[in-house]
Amino acid sequence: MTKNVSRRTLGIGLIGSGFMGKAHALAFRTVGGVFPLAAEPRLEILADISADKAARAAYELGFARFTAQWERLVLDPAVDIVAITTPNRQHAPMALAAIAAGKHVYCEKPLATSLEDARAMTEAAERAGVVTQVGFNYLRNPMVHTAKEIIASGEIGDIIGFSGQYIAGFMGTPEGSWSWRFQPEEAGGALADIGSHLISMSRYLLGEVASVCAGLDTVYPTRTSSDGQSHRVGIDDQAAILARFQDHPFTATLFTSWVATGREMGLSFDVTGSKGALRFTQERLNELELFKSGQAANRRGFTRLTASPAYPPYGAFTPGAGHQLGFNDLKVIEVRNLIDAVCGVAPAETPFRDALRTAMVMEAVRDSSRTRQWMDVPAQ
Amino acid sequence: MTKNVSRRTLGIGLIGSGFMGKAHALAFRTVGGVFPLAAEPRLEILADISADKAARAAYELGFARFTAQWERLVLDPAVDIVAITTPNRQHAPMALAAIAAGKHVYCEKPLATSLEDARAMTEAAERAGVVTQVGFNYLRNPMVHTAKEIIASGEIGDIIGFSGQYIAGFMGTPEGSWSWRFQPEEAGGALADIGSHLISMSRYLLGEVASVCAGLDTVYPTRTSSDGQSHRVGIDDQAAILARFQDHPFTATLFTSWVATGREMGLSFDVTGSKGALRFTQERLNELELFKSGQAANRRGFTRLTASPAYPPYGAFTPGAGHQLGFNDLKVIEVRNLIDAVCGVAPAETPFRDALRTAMVMEAVRDSSRTRQWMDVPAQ
Amino acid sequence: MTKNVSRRTLGIGLIGSGFMGKAHALAFRTVGGVFPLAAEPRLEILADISADKAARAAYELGFARFTAQWERLVLDPAVDIVAITTPNRQHAPMALAAIAAGKHVYCEKPLATSLEDARAMTEAAERAGVVTQVGFNYLRNPMVHTAKEIIASGEIGDIIGFSGQYIAGFMGTPEGSWSWRFQPEEAGGALADIGSHLISMSRYLLGEVASVCAGLDTVYPTRTSSDGQSHRVGIDDQAAILARFQDHPFTATLFTSWVATGREMGLSFDVTGSKGALRFTQERLNELELFKSGQAANRRGFTRLTASPAYPPYGAFTPGAGHQLGFNDLKVIEVRNLIDAVCGVAPAETPFRDALRTAMVMEAVRDSSRTRQWMDVPAQ
Amino acid sequence: MTKNVSRRTLGIGLIGSGFMGKAHALAFRTVGGVFPLAAEPRLEILADISADKAARAAYELGFARFTAQWERLVLDPAVDIVAITTPNRQHAPMALAAIAAGKHVYCEKPLATSLEDARAMTEAAERAGVVTQVGFNYLRNPMVHTAKEIIASGEIGDIIGFSGQYIAGFMGTPEGSWSWRFQPEEAGGALADIGSHLISMSRYLLGEVASVCAGLDTVYPTRTSSDGQSHRVGIDDQAAILARFQDHPFTATLFTSWVATGREMGLSFDVTGSKGALRFTQERLNELELFKSGQAANRRGFTRLTASPAYPPYGAFTPGAGHQLGFNDLKVIEVRNLIDAVCGVAPAETPFRDALRTAMVMEAVRDSSRTRQWMDVPAQ
Repeated sequence: MTKNVSRRTLGIGLIGSGFMGKAHALAFRTVGGVFPLAAEPRLEILADISADKAARAAYELGFARFTAQWERLVLDPAVDIVAITTPNRQHAPMALAAIAAGKHVYCEKPLATSLEDARAMTEAAERAGVVTQVGFNYLRNPMVHTAKEIIASGEIGDIIGFSGQYIAGFMGTPEGSWSWRFQPEEAGGALADIGSHLISMSRYLLGEVASVCAGLDTVYPTRTSSDGQSHRVGIDDQAAILARFQDHPFTATLFTSWVATGREMGLSFDVTGSKGALRFTQERLNELELFKSGQAANRRGFTRLTASPAYPPYGAFTPGAGHQLGFNDLKVIEVRNLIDAVCGVAPAETPFRDALRTAMVMEAVRDSSRTRQWMDVPAQ
Repeated sequence: MTKNVSRRTLGIGLIGSGFMGKAHALAFRTVGGVFPLAAEPRLEILADISADKAARAAYELGFARFTAQWERLVLDPAVDIVAITTPNRQHAPMALAAIAAGKHVYCEKPLATSLEDARAMTEAAERAGVVTQVGFNYLRNPMVHTAKEIIASGEIGDIIGFSGQYIAGFMGTPEGSWSWRFQPEEAGGALADIGSHLISMSRYLLGEVASVCAGLDTVYPTRTSSDGQSHRVGIDDQAAILARFQDHPFTATLFTSWVATGREMGLSFDVTGSKGALRFTQERLNELELFKSGQAANRRGFTRLTASPAYPPYGAFTPGAGHQLGFNDLKVIEVRNLIDAVCGVAPAETPFRDALRTAMVMEAVRDSSRTRQWMDVPAQ
Repeated sequence: MTKNVSRRTLGIGLIGSGFMGKAHALAFRTVGGVFPLAAEPRLEILADISADKAARAAYELGFARFTAQWERLVLDPAVDIVAITTPNRQHAPMALAAIAAGKHVYCEKPLATSLEDARAMTEAAERAGVVTQVGFNYLRNPMVHTAKEIIASGEIGDIIGFSGQYIAGFMGTPEGSWSWRFQPEEAGGALADIGSHLISMSRYLLGEVASVCAGLDTVYPTRTSSDGQSHRVGIDDQAAILARFQDHPFTATLFTSWVATGREMGLSFDVTGSKGALRFTQERLNELELFKSGQAANRRGFTRLTASPAYPPYGAFTPGAGHQLGFNDLKVIEVRNLIDAVCGVAPAETPFRDALRTAMVMEAVRDSSRTRQWMDVPAQ
Repeated sequence: MTKNVSRRTLGIGLIGSGFMGKAHALAFRTVGGVFPLAAEPRLEILADISADKAARAAYELGFARFTAQWERLVLDPAVDIVAITTPNRQHAPMALAAIAAGKHVYCEKPLATSLEDARAMTEAAERAGVVTQVGFNYLRNPMVHTAKEIIASGEIGDIIGFSGQYIAGFMGTPEGSWSWRFQPEEAGGALADIGSHLISMSRYLLGEVASVCAGLDTVYPTRTSSDGQSHRVGIDDQAAILARFQDHPFTATLFTSWVATGREMGLSFDVTGSKGALRFTQERLNELELFKSGQAANRRGFTRLTASPAYPPYGAFTPGAGHQLGFNDLKVIEVRNLIDAVCGVAPAETPFRDALRTAMVMEAVRDSSRTRQWMDVPAQ
């Protein structure tokens, strides 16, 4: 004889079905098999810009229903969590509508296309008391979490140096690349698109940024659309930044570029402490290099730590050391945190408030580049 | 207004809920969101050795029903595919029962604990016309598939050298490690447990093995159980092998060990062709190193290829180049192939027949070590 | 019967016998066996601060004579080239005396402790028509030279990004480390000591620096001497720099530190072109990574070029590809260039004039850090 | 006033001025500046096959005299040490003549082209009481020496696994490559040419080899000479070997090839102990990877040790950690040992007796390949 199993569920409404839409859908599908959860996500409705597109995506990604009108999704009583994976400019209206409807909101980064929007979204969510989370998935990597713990515990002494990069080449070909991403009112360039990950990771590791001095460059001032037409680019292709942190007495270097030929996932950092050091690159996301002082001179060096169940929550994916996590697994960890937060089990790790602080650093970076001055990042 | 979505499904019955049981369950959950499938898996029944264990696992992994009697699962009309992830000795009776019930069978490696069982399982499945697949998941890696294509196409010329290893340290501590895995009637040592992956990968890349000369060693002849009792070990801890392939005129070296201190996932190969070379290690599963002759002397070297949508089916997981797949994703690809085979869309890639050939090589390795002679691998 | 061999020689006078003194001596001993030279160096006189020290060093390093008075060495008629490897503050008086005596001068970096001295030395040498060279040995690496050629030839397109570092940890322990190197009138901190290498390499690869914005930090504001006494540090431990080049339209990041725990030789750069990229680290000085656009998507990646006779003048050291050069070999190449310049065969590659330009960049970096402003680097 | 310096010297007679001839000459020139020596080498006579060639080489490499008759060099009273870098077949007659003249002998590997010659040379040298040394320079690497110490001290427990390779591609193009190296009476193929390094290193690390089972393959059975004529190849291009050591209870794998496309210096080993592991490749000769058990699960991994003064005699070359040694520096260390042995300061590290034992292993490898049997290596 076989017996039945039952579970509590949370209805998911996903808006957008591109790169990140699929990543969200997969994470929601998978998370309940990886982690014990207080409630299991239920793929309730998928919204996209046309009924056809939404129908196909709902079928492919496993949603029960679909719609071409995101406003319906936001209001649907079976939806508990609204996941937003649309172009940047739509984040604000969608999130605000979802918050107004009392839904929890899971939004891709960058939070918004203006600091004002980001602040409005944050304040609305906090007033409404809904759970929010922004998709800074790279912070969810167990190896990055270990880096943070090593820094915070003083294991490598006082932090005395930091370099961070996020370089990638996906915008490296101006021919045929023109899209909404190059218009300043729609998006924010390399700084917003991938630099936001770099800044959020720097803040995650070292705390708040106090001041910045930066140079933003538009390497390709014109780009052509697929029809061959030339367009003037209004955003940055890369940003070079000096940064000082509130709690550390040194100047750090940060660099981000989306025209870095040959690089695919060059999110990396190099942390120096008075008693050790750490190196990480997302290109090898299952590794973290650690140096510790105090070893014999002929037995010391950087030790390559490799992902295993010794680095929670890796073991929830597989008990096999060295078997490795992939990008989608980081999204699963992110979604686990979201559901835990919605169920009241744990705080959300990168709520809108946190993403707002990252946005404030980006604003200071832009101001600094424009004025050619050091800029303080406001405390609030 | 929102619309509903419907799908055809295949009922999955999973026996065993340990390391590989969870990997199977996750793959079945996820696969339909990653790939377009002719039918979506439905997590129907989970069987384990006790009702409690089965109930908990069914709840955690997302199965609709559970049972402590695998014989019921095998006969259940809602089950289309039986997935076997139990200790090695049980593979044969479970698979034979499933085949007898007309079910398709997805079995973990090694196929069986004796060559006779492996042969019987293969022949029964072929007579019954059911689809079978054995879990040689490392072959499903897009980078490994690329290596195979490069070899097969002649892109690196005639193959003139091969070294392969699978070394790991998970059995490296004799204290407290005694289990069924060290009894020859239950299991087959490092050779069967992980060497089977090495041999299947060598065959995948280079074709059939013609003859072998090998030394099997039991590095730790006694091990203690958790109660401190000492037990005599009856199996190999490592195997060093010379191998000749049917289609290649050179002697290869293969080495496998599960007592290799410090290594976690050391499945690697080094292929030399007359016009190029390839290097791979599962420790960095998203990378493949390629050397091609014919470049200028000051512009040549090994090129590090990194996983991206250019290596199908990577793009089904994410359009982001360099974002990386993890171990569980390889299982998703494996399960996709299984479902395609069950639906008649594609042939199974490592059916029982293929696993039987790997078992025949292992048998020749054992014979060679015992007799200290080169042994031919029988053609059939 | 055996026959005799004769050669033309150049007398070498070496001042200082520490780290760099020995490196100079070894290079002069070895160079004639590696390269065909118009004249062979002859180790004529070694000067150090005491007769005992000079005698011992002369014996160990193979000089024919020794002296405790460098002024005698400078005036000795058998000396053709004066090599200066003393503490930074002595470079200027020694070089000026040597120039006044009509000697060619080979001086370690940094050229001087003030911009005025550096300028005076440069102008004196140019007026006197003697050959000068400054020890920026890392530029002599065949792999770095290849990087420069790849950049200059347009092989990787327009240069659109650059990050450079020189981080090392040799000053990372404040206890017992106090020396002349921490007094601003004697030395120039990490920026002068190793940052000068970073700036000279950046200029070597990309041309002149137009403007900089920088933050210099003294990580350890006090250090103790070997007797336990505490001293106030007057120089920088690290420098974070944004830089713009005259011929390139982007902002680069540079970072140098001599308190970078765990790093030994972290001189590295990362160059992005519109059609390719380069990566190098002195930690693996025999390697250079090159990415070229225009390959098939599934056959591209960074290619690891490795030192061989295909990268002149490597072949002068050994015809064996992959055999590798060491640090002292870079000094041999430097000295070859010096002798070629003295013999009129080739121009000196980093004469005082070039080192002066590096010093001008360092001065702008210091000014920028003090004023918290972007600073232009004067054209002359 | 300057003072004079004087020294005791040893006259060097070098036969051959190719690849290794130049390496010897450079080492003899340099060694006295690197190490304090009881006597300094004096480049006395160079012999080569013609007077022209000898004259040019003597001039380029810095010898005082030259000759076209090596017999004169061997008998010259100013010669204390005869260095032999000629084709393999000439090693025996030259060494025997030098020994008969009472000279110390420094001979390149392989010692001879037959085991009988090797034995005769060894016995003649021991009877004559002269110092001998064979050029197994890779053993002189401080990092390899550290590996040996770690193994010998028990720091990584009992040794339970070993894989070694020496693969390179310098014979990978059959067209135009025909030379004396492919005739069995003149040379010994890949096994003798580079496999001798692999075997000597395996013996250096693990002690004597007890038995072997091997397959030798001639990948390219014909090669053409530069005039286009085709020649039948009589030697091996690669060798795959199983080996058991006298003092260790496991089967090791060894592989050597000189047709390994794309590899330049692939001499590497992988040692597993019950409490740790070591990895080394000559491709990065300044690095050694070490794993030690007994660390916390989330702080362990392979540590990359990098060459520095903590690994003697590195510091004699430079006090700068991480500055790196090159191939020629290994020869300098070798020659230091030779001179120390000649001066009675230290025993020679790889005398003829040691090279004879390596030759005996190679003989057993050849016998095993021919008979397809395991072969014992004779104890004497």
